[in-house]
Amino acid sequence: MISYETSQNMISLLSITNLRSERVFLSSGLGRILAEDIVADSDYPIHPTSAMDGYAIAHRDLENYETFEVLGDNPAGADDIGGVISGACIKTFTGSLMPSGSDTLIPIENVRVNGDSITVTKTVGKGFAVRPVGESYRKGEVLIPRGTKIGFAEIGVLAGINRVMIRVTQRPRVAIIATGSEILDIGEESRHAGQIRSSNSYTLQALVDTLGGESVQMGIVGDDQDAIMERFEEAISSCDIVVSTGGVSVGDYDFVKDIVPRLGAKVIFKGVNIKPGQHVMVAQRGDKFVVSLPGFAYSSTVTFILYAGPLIARMMGIENPYEVIEATLKVPFVKRSNKSEFTACNLSFEEGRYWVDFEGKKGGSSAILTNLLGNAGLMICGEEDGDLEAGTLVRVIKL
Amino acid sequence: MISYETSQNMISLLSITNLRSERVFLSSGLGRILAEDIVADSDYPIHPTSAMDGYAIAHRDLENYETFEVLGDNPAGADDIGGVISGACIKTFTGSLMPSGSDTLIPIENVRVNGDSITVTKTVGKGFAVRPVGESYRKGEVLIPRGTKIGFAEIGVLAGINRVMIRVTQRPRVAIIATGSEILDIGEESRHAGQIRSSNSYTLQALVDTLGGESVQMGIVGDDQDAIMERFEEAISSCDIVVSTGGVSVGDYDFVKDIVPRLGAKVIFKGVNIKPGQHVMVAQRGDKFVVSLPGFAYSSTVTFILYAGPLIARMMGIENPYEVIEATLKVPFVKRSNKSEFTACNLSFEEGRYWVDFEGKKGGSSAILTNLLGNAGLMICGEEDGDLEAGTLVRVIKL
Repeated sequence: MISYETSQNMISLLSITNLRSERVFLSSGLGRILAEDIVADSDYPIHPTSAMDGYAIAHRDLENYETFEVLGDNPAGADDIGGVISGACIKTFTGSLMPSGSDTLIPIENVRVNGDSITVTKTVGKGFAVRPVGESYRKGEVLIPRGTKIGFAEIGVLAGINRVMIRVTQRPRVAIIATGSEILDIGEESRHAGQIRSSNSYTLQALVDTLGGESVQMGIVGDDQDAIMERFEEAISSCDIVVSTGGVSVGDYDFVKDIVPRLGAKVIFKGVNIKPGQHVMVAQRGDKFVVSLPGFAYSSTVTFILYAGPLIARMMGIENPYEVIEATLKVPFVKRSNKSEFTACNLSFEEGRYWVDFEGKKGGSSAILTNLLGNAGLMICGEEDGDLEAGTLVRVIKL
Repeated sequence: MISYETSQNMISLLSITNLRSERVFLSSGLGRILAEDIVADSDYPIHPTSAMDGYAIAHRDLENYETFEVLGDNPAGADDIGGVISGACIKTFTGSLMPSGSDTLIPIENVRVNGDSITVTKTVGKGFAVRPVGESYRKGEVLIPRGTKIGFAEIGVLAGINRVMIRVTQRPRVAIIATGSEILDIGEESRHAGQIRSSNSYTLQALVDTLGGESVQMGIVGDDQDAIMERFEEAISSCDIVVSTGGVSVGDYDFVKDIVPRLGAKVIFKGVNIKPGQHVMVAQRGDKFVVSLPGFAYSSTVTFILYAGPLIARMMGIENPYEVIEATLKVPFVKRSNKSEFTACNLSFEEGRYWVDFEGKKGGSSAILTNLLGNAGLMICGEEDGDLEAGTLVRVIKL
């Protein structure tokens, strides 16, 4: 069995060759990953622009004049606005172009209006309340680098440069297969007590969707070698990543571990010294991947986060789908094995630091998914670590 | 002008009466807010269940026997599995029900197989590798309280209790109106230099979508009182919240501030001692709200986050749409006004703490949306605060 660190290195060294891009409307861009640098094609603003309501003047006129004739109004959006001449001004509003001949805006609060003229009661510096050319950005500037996840500010900036269509990375198609003859699907009526309602398919679908992948729900397949083989072949031929649960342990009915190599997939690793999920297996066929997770709900969720998540993210052009932060243990932690342990914890932020506790978390088997409810994190306790005292700084995967 | 703190109190004291719920398929539940407590309707597991592959025995038999007759196989999902009798065992797999008469599983690693019988080479404690009834949860336990945002673990737990349909809060409909005769819409060709490409509508739409509201894009309307009045009436009659940009300042063409009261909306406040966005106005008509933001890109984005975001969140049944965290200033901060200032900053997490700096952020007017690109936060500097030294602990809104 390899160590957790080795397994993570092996994942990060996998060559991802199917990083594909597509053009989408800006309205579909939120949450996607940019596949191009966004470069400003002009200065912004492209002309000097008023930042307030006031009177546009030439600043040097303040040496010679206190009173200025108002030549006219320059509302925002006006086309022909005329120019300012010596001893005169143009009333200019927020967002309007500055009239030719002017370089400074006297705010309306700084003047006294006398009919068709104004008297400046308080002067301002040259260029006051004028947005200079290129205040926001200059032509040729990279505004948003490729690989950026598009949020609200990116949407705004893209709209501001009139980008209707943008190039983003394609969403990898991720097939989800649950194996196990005992599994009762959601909505299906129970026929006997030996059937167990399973959540894996839907937890994993939600994880894929949350990461921005395109989930393809392949359903449940019983412990039958031919049926499993057929479902996996359908999945791998139509999707970029196949994520399966169950069938990777040492039992007589654990067929997945044998079928994946028979698909022609090369096993990258099988078995990692982690708890939960030590039987996890990652395999590759061409530019596609099979990530076979254990069947227990908590184990499959944790190993998805450790192995499938990073692969999906890398296919979308980002490195780290989950943030790993440092936090302080509020309570002692008892290590239960000589493996790297991943323990569901409560993560709180107080006094400028993150804190970890386990209140309300249940001990027991790796089947307990409820431990991941709420604002849970996943505390990492290394292979070499023993029990940890309260106050210890630990690493936590934010979910 | 009221203070920022007063304005926030006024927002939080507004009575939200239109908190409506709806039933959706679980597949549409991700990211929605639960409008019901989710209660376990049975213990889980409902029967003792095997947590490994091994041989099910009665633990007291270990006092009298070393060798056990194997009565048969009990694969996961089997219906009629028979019972264990004294001196005998049943081979039982992960996820299988424990046979009647058995209480303990001897892992396959702990036995030597001799034809139809096994010899136990290493004993285990009573109940070993058996998931007891109710290990995950007990009947009647509140698994997920109302008000929880549904993430992957909630989806999994809901699927596990066979909840196909769930009750969630309705997404408030949020109309977005941009005002200003100078505004050139995305995709529209420029006719003259006085037109300015505006991003507000799309930034705000992305903010609404990110929060989980239902955005209704009402488009751009010029500085014409009748046109603005008509567009606002259409928006408020069809939506729960109207968010507008522009027209709230003191200029001759700032019509929004006058039109909102004419709609029959009661002004909750107009003007807050903040920078940017001091002219922001919040009004209420019946159970609906109008949030009128300034026109500059940075100002409208910040005031949306401060005022529209919380209202949208409260209509969905959650209190805080944005997390406010404490961070340490890496560099000095120069306060520019006697207002509460909201400054775009870089937020990094190192050595167990959040840090704030302003590298790459441009000074200048409130028009610079690019400052919010990347992983920006919004640093809060209070009305009473002056310049801040490096090392000061500040509050930052995480975006």
